[in-house]
Amino acid sequence: MSQTRTAAIQYIHENRSRFLEEFIDILTIPSISTESEYKQDMQRCADWLVEKLGALGMDNARVYPTAGEPVVYGESYSAGSAAPTVLVYGHYDVQPVDPLHLWESDPFDPDVRGDNLYARGATDMKGQIMAALFALEAIKDNGSLPVNVKFLFEGEEEIGSPSLDAFIADHKELLACDLVLNPDAGMLAADLPTITYALRGLVYFELRLYGPDHDLHSGMFGGVVHNPAQALCELVAGTHDEQGRVTLPGFYDKVRSIDDKEREELARLPVDEAFYIKQSGVPGLWGESGYSPVERVGARPTLEVNGLLSGFTGEGSKTVLPAWSMAKISCRLVPDQDPEEVHQQMLDYLASNAPSTVRYELEKLSSGSSAISDRESIGVKAMSQAFDTVWGRRPIFRREGGSIPVVAMFQEFLGVESVNIGFSLPEDNLHAPNEKIHLPTWQRGIEAIIQFFYNLSE
Amino acid sequence: MSQTRTAAIQYIHENRSRFLEEFIDILTIPSISTESEYKQDMQRCADWLVEKLGALGMDNARVYPTAGEPVVYGESYSAGSAAPTVLVYGHYDVQPVDPLHLWESDPFDPDVRGDNLYARGATDMKGQIMAALFALEAIKDNGSLPVNVKFLFEGEEEIGSPSLDAFIADHKELLACDLVLNPDAGMLAADLPTITYALRGLVYFELRLYGPDHDLHSGMFGGVVHNPAQALCELVAGTHDEQGRVTLPGFYDKVRSIDDKEREELARLPVDEAFYIKQSGVPGLWGESGYSPVERVGARPTLEVNGLLSGFTGEGSKTVLPAWSMAKISCRLVPDQDPEEVHQQMLDYLASNAPSTVRYELEKLSSGSSAISDRESIGVKAMSQAFDTVWGRRPIFRREGGSIPVVAMFQEFLGVESVNIGFSLPEDNLHAPNEKIHLPTWQRGIEAIIQFFYNLSE
Repeated sequence: MSQTRTAAIQYIHENRSRFLEEFIDILTIPSISTESEYKQDMQRCADWLVEKLGALGMDNARVYPTAGEPVVYGESYSAGSAAPTVLVYGHYDVQPVDPLHLWESDPFDPDVRGDNLYARGATDMKGQIMAALFALEAIKDNGSLPVNVKFLFEGEEEIGSPSLDAFIADHKELLACDLVLNPDAGMLAADLPTITYALRGLVYFELRLYGPDHDLHSGMFGGVVHNPAQALCELVAGTHDEQGRVTLPGFYDKVRSIDDKEREELARLPVDEAFYIKQSGVPGLWGESGYSPVERVGARPTLEVNGLLSGFTGEGSKTVLPAWSMAKISCRLVPDQDPEEVHQQMLDYLASNAPSTVRYELEKLSSGSSAISDRESIGVKAMSQAFDTVWGRRPIFRREGGSIPVVAMFQEFLGVESVNIGFSLPEDNLHAPNEKIHLPTWQRGIEAIIQFFYNLSE
Repeated sequence: MSQTRTAAIQYIHENRSRFLEEFIDILTIPSISTESEYKQDMQRCADWLVEKLGALGMDNARVYPTAGEPVVYGESYSAGSAAPTVLVYGHYDVQPVDPLHLWESDPFDPDVRGDNLYARGATDMKGQIMAALFALEAIKDNGSLPVNVKFLFEGEEEIGSPSLDAFIADHKELLACDLVLNPDAGMLAADLPTITYALRGLVYFELRLYGPDHDLHSGMFGGVVHNPAQALCELVAGTHDEQGRVTLPGFYDKVRSIDDKEREELARLPVDEAFYIKQSGVPGLWGESGYSPVERVGARPTLEVNGLLSGFTGEGSKTVLPAWSMAKISCRLVPDQDPEEVHQQMLDYLASNAPSTVRYELEKLSSGSSAISDRESIGVKAMSQAFDTVWGRRPIFRREGGSIPVVAMFQEFLGVESVNIGFSLPEDNLHAPNEKIHLPTWQRGIEAIIQFFYNLSE
């Protein structure tokens, strides 16, 4: 290992407590993009990042307004035109915090308990952004940058990045690069560094059913008016058959099948039934027959109910026949499904199955394409070697069940692939109460990004 | 018509504006029994009624504490032992007001618009209680009472009267009477005085499904964990077959069938498809095949979803796989179904149909038996004649889809039948936003109760 690498690694160990303080500082900002009341906090978080980029000596550090939340940008071309250019992607928005009463500490008053730091956004993904920024700081403090870097942080990932595709399309020159580093993909366990070569896409709907024009007394109208809550349940129940397959017409037509070689590789991943049962606490698994759990999560599309609401849901009993009902429903997509086609399939399903006794509306709230990356690219190789250095083992290669729509956008608009990694663990309560990050893993993550930057230039 | 009757009728016309003021006063008290935060208002409403009974010269006017909300009582034996004794039943509790934003005026700031008075409880049933009290006042102010009267007002009707059966069982002597006047049954239209001879019973459940031990990321676990919102929809969808029949095992075994004579009578009611469509605003009706709308509401049991809740229900999208889901489900019962047996049938249904991939809990929140009355009793005849006098036509006899559990309790503990009437109209938004009462009908109702009391003594 070169002297500068060693000095950079040394630097992060010496600055551990200051890093933690800065990390905690950004976590106190409630940058919740799904709820409009946090609009000012979104701007505050963007400004915080611009200031940090400026302090790191990035050029042109600034906020770009969009139709939605601002984009944060900063760059350094100091490595020269012969060196590769890496675009580091991140999102500074976080998930909502409800149900708040299940949090053991305030989601925006970060709390270190044992090896973990608890806060909304700790692992998804302010911690990942800060790991990249601290890695850069460590390198710069001990020498010159081995690569050119660009930072692009959006504030709308948790709502499906509605403004980002236009921003990327409008700023192709600004964002031009050789590869993207996307640290939003997580790892399978603290001792299993992971490179994610495939991501599922997403299309998210809100389905509303309207029955009577006002809430009715269930005694006076029960038996003659089709209950919109009942009708909603019938429609939702019909989205799966008894084999756990999604019934939307044509849903599987474009699904790329996995070959025997990939099935064998996926079978070697240390993610079995027991893993999923332990992580979720369910009595037993469920899903599409004919596929292993890891195949179902990574290589097969799904349809999930994310929320249900109708009628009286408070304490006690109210004998109401509700005027309306609502379900939030989303589909995880795999290559080569198209979100717009699945939108149409959902409309077709409703047209065929919704009863004439209710009226319905389907709103598409967000969508993003699936993505798949070349495992032989220079970026993947540089990261694989970095993991080998820091963890002492080759990384796991996996398909990810989650969605990172931006990976497909970079492919489409910039023509580049992403190296999808991250230091988020399955037990970090992503999108749930008591979100946390495992600090020793986070520390290793900073080291790995340092190694990655140096590896790219060799 | 006797001179005292005429004077009593005259009295209510002279006192119309003061009656309205007093009526508005009791409507300002938010006596919501389903929500514990209104506990003090419940007591305040009970005290208000005790004071009114005292002002009317009732003896022993007082509040009786119960395990739940207080019972209000008052009596007068001034008519002597030869005269019949009428127990007037009422409930002073009201429904919750949500969704509050749909109210055009504050539910507890009563507002007269045109011929209607808008407030929560206006029609269900403070207006009905006040009609009986003003009828009594009018008679007493112009002579002696022709019958003995007892007033019993409970505060738990909207939560299924959990304390009332014990109260009646413990106070059989206090409540002993020849018949009950129950003005909680409404009428079909302003020009159709109605006597309700059959009432449906009720059993109300809360069903909760538990899947993972915390909310999960739908990308990381979608496809391997059975979504409790999906599972709930499957269970709810399965409660009805394609003919609109309830599928709980044995649900129809004890249902008393209606004979051809009753079907003919029911067919004469002015309640057709168009009526239900107009009242509810639905595009078309729904329900059990083989029965007319009026039969389905009055003489057939039903199962309704009163509420649904799971996962994320706020603005925008959140890709959560929810930890739990909940449905409020209630069955309307007809003679001779037993609420406890239907509770067991629901448990049997769940035991047979709930998947092993989720855990469930069923809580019974309330229940009450159905009831059916003799149409040749002295009470029904006295009321029929009163309606004839005031409206100039014989009343409609009907089965009611709603539940008045207390009617079955009086039958069981006191051995008396109830005369079920009321001056609530189908368009009065019972249990819904913008509840109201039609003041001209209410005024006629006071007259009718005056006539009823006099008719009973003749």
